[in-house]
Amino acid sequence: MNLSTSSLLFRKTHQILRHRFRRQQFLIRSLCGYNIQTGIGKMQQIQCMDRPIVDADAENVLRRITPTFDLRRHKGQAGKIAVIGGCREYTGAPYFAAISALKIGADLSHVFCTKDAATVIKSYSPELIVHPVLEESYSVRDDEKAGVLDKVLAEVTKWLGRFDCLVVGPGLGRDPFLLECVSEIMRRARQSNVPIVVDGDGLFLVTNNLDLVKGYSLAVLTPNVNEYKRLIEQVLECEVKDEDASEQLLSLAKKIGGATILRKGSSDLISDGKTVSVVSVHGSPRRCGGQGDILSGSVAVFSSWARQQMISSEEDYNKRPANPLVLGCIAASVLLRKAATLAFDKKKRSTITGDIIECLGESLEGICPARTLG
Amino acid sequence: MNLSTSSLLFRKTHQILRHRFRRQQFLIRSLCGYNIQTGIGKMQQIQCMDRPIVDADAENVLRRITPTFDLRRHKGQAGKIAVIGGCREYTGAPYFAAISALKIGADLSHVFCTKDAATVIKSYSPELIVHPVLEESYSVRDDEKAGVLDKVLAEVTKWLGRFDCLVVGPGLGRDPFLLECVSEIMRRARQSNVPIVVDGDGLFLVTNNLDLVKGYSLAVLTPNVNEYKRLIEQVLECEVKDEDASEQLLSLAKKIGGATILRKGSSDLISDGKTVSVVSVHGSPRRCGGQGDILSGSVAVFSSWARQQMISSEEDYNKRPANPLVLGCIAASVLLRKAATLAFDKKKRSTITGDIIECLGESLEGICPARTLG
Repeated sequence: MNLSTSSLLFRKTHQILRHRFRRQQFLIRSLCGYNIQTGIGKMQQIQCMDRPIVDADAENVLRRITPTFDLRRHKGQAGKIAVIGGCREYTGAPYFAAISALKIGADLSHVFCTKDAATVIKSYSPELIVHPVLEESYSVRDDEKAGVLDKVLAEVTKWLGRFDCLVVGPGLGRDPFLLECVSEIMRRARQSNVPIVVDGDGLFLVTNNLDLVKGYSLAVLTPNVNEYKRLIEQVLECEVKDEDASEQLLSLAKKIGGATILRKGSSDLISDGKTVSVVSVHGSPRRCGGQGDILSGSVAVFSSWARQQMISSEEDYNKRPANPLVLGCIAASVLLRKAATLAFDKKKRSTITGDIIECLGESLEGICPARTLG
Repeated sequence: MNLSTSSLLFRKTHQILRHRFRRQQFLIRSLCGYNIQTGIGKMQQIQCMDRPIVDADAENVLRRITPTFDLRRHKGQAGKIAVIGGCREYTGAPYFAAISALKIGADLSHVFCTKDAATVIKSYSPELIVHPVLEESYSVRDDEKAGVLDKVLAEVTKWLGRFDCLVVGPGLGRDPFLLECVSEIMRRARQSNVPIVVDGDGLFLVTNNLDLVKGYSLAVLTPNVNEYKRLIEQVLECEVKDEDASEQLLSLAKKIGGATILRKGSSDLISDGKTVSVVSVHGSPRRCGGQGDILSGSVAVFSSWARQQMISSEEDYNKRPANPLVLGCIAASVLLRKAATLAFDKKKRSTITGDIIECLGESLEGICPARTLG
């Protein structure tokens, strides 16, 4: 072996080792860990994804984007959220999403649902503003549909500009006419640059109509295991690869073109196609239905706060901004996990979603104690 | 300089200085402070507006007008309040106003709303008496309207004489036919000398129909930032001047001709066109929707108590009485602020309007412990 052959072999081995090391780092980051852009405006951290996994970072993100109270502010400035969901069959999910938004600190929380659902959702709480404007096929004749669609759109779009974020999907159901109306609402929201968090049956709608969110950087999808499976099959035309979870999520988000995806699981994985973040703080072992609705309402509030802070900040974020929707997902994920754990400590097997919602405030205060300016 | 010139100069200088002194006093009173007619019947205090700002004065007002319990009294004597509001879209606001009235100490609390709203408001609490009598355009044909209006009026006016105060507006909505009915209810209430607190969509109605409250000294308007802006633009035909807030409020109240206005903000300003009072006790930094409804229900109760006390007092108030509606506003303002602070201490960011209502009793007891005669 002469010197040049030896040198070539050395280089090749070095390349292979470096590649393996990077791959190993990526896997560690993805599967066990947590890598985020903690600092809005800390550009170097956006590109730096190899810090060790520290769950406290998720709490730091939450602290960073949660606004300090200010006595000079007035109603609405801490967030106006609207949930599009609730039909004859489902009423709990939109309630959970909307009330969670209030319990985290939003000022106003609306629900747009069908007439049947409205009476029930209203009766759950006088704190929500519930609009009985959506219609399902069973209550509309075919020849009336065009007119009803226009009416629904008119009712919803007159409010759209006032909201900081929509949550589309909790308890939406799968009625074709209802989904047609909601598709159009999503298009209008997109035209008005209103961020949209998509969950539940909203994901069923979006998976079959990807154009609704494709290329829209103000969309967040929050799929659970099954919803994620359908999304992967539809978009990447393959099976879910758990051994390569981060990379696959990154590809999915890239393919959808800028929307943020929060893949719910034992660890939550979050990607906007540029970075992958993992939140693995312990949650509760209880898997009672409704926790996803708390999450979607929370993502809406935290994302609104992160966007608000970014807009009001003096730093130049246009260069390479930390994605406020990613930050919102990280904060929502860690808060839900903390609240679920707290609720489980108190209620054990009998923990239900309402118990977790009642723990949102205490958990938030534990991470980020309320302070007031002015 | 002869004596008469010197005397003239002295008088002129004195006039200027006096004018400046008064102006300075007015500004101090308006911008930093709190000046009220604490004592019903203490005439000298009505004209004397230069005492230092003491928030405890607001608590004194509350103590002075809150009746002592008396075992000889019977149901209804501590106040019968009615809220006119609640439509297909809004049910929380009238509930908050009506339940707050009860939680402060009124004996009976009614709600007059649409059929759609009634079922829901009834479901919030069995404590309220809810009348499903109002109608919205969508449920009434044009040719039926005159008849329906008569029917609505008949249903409401048979109750009117029994109420100590109406709250018009919480969750009223803006349906033209509904507002037409409510205008007529307000006219009837005025004919019967029933005090009216106007809030929310009631202010939308009144701003466009000033005659409803113009010259009615038993009306109270409780506008928030936006509602006040519209009122100023409509009545004074200018912009809101925050640097001259008290003077502008005084002008507005004068122009409306005797109605009391409570301008809600970081400090609450209250004027009936004769005096301006400021309540600046710390409130909560949470701005969740619904707090205005607690306030309107509270103003109704405290104003009723202040009027009741005035009527039953032996002193001759006809000369120059302290305005009981102004006193009611001061008491309601300080109580809401105390209750909101207490709720915030307990619940922090997750404080919602229901939590504040739950703190009304404890806060009231803190200011004015319940005592019983007889």
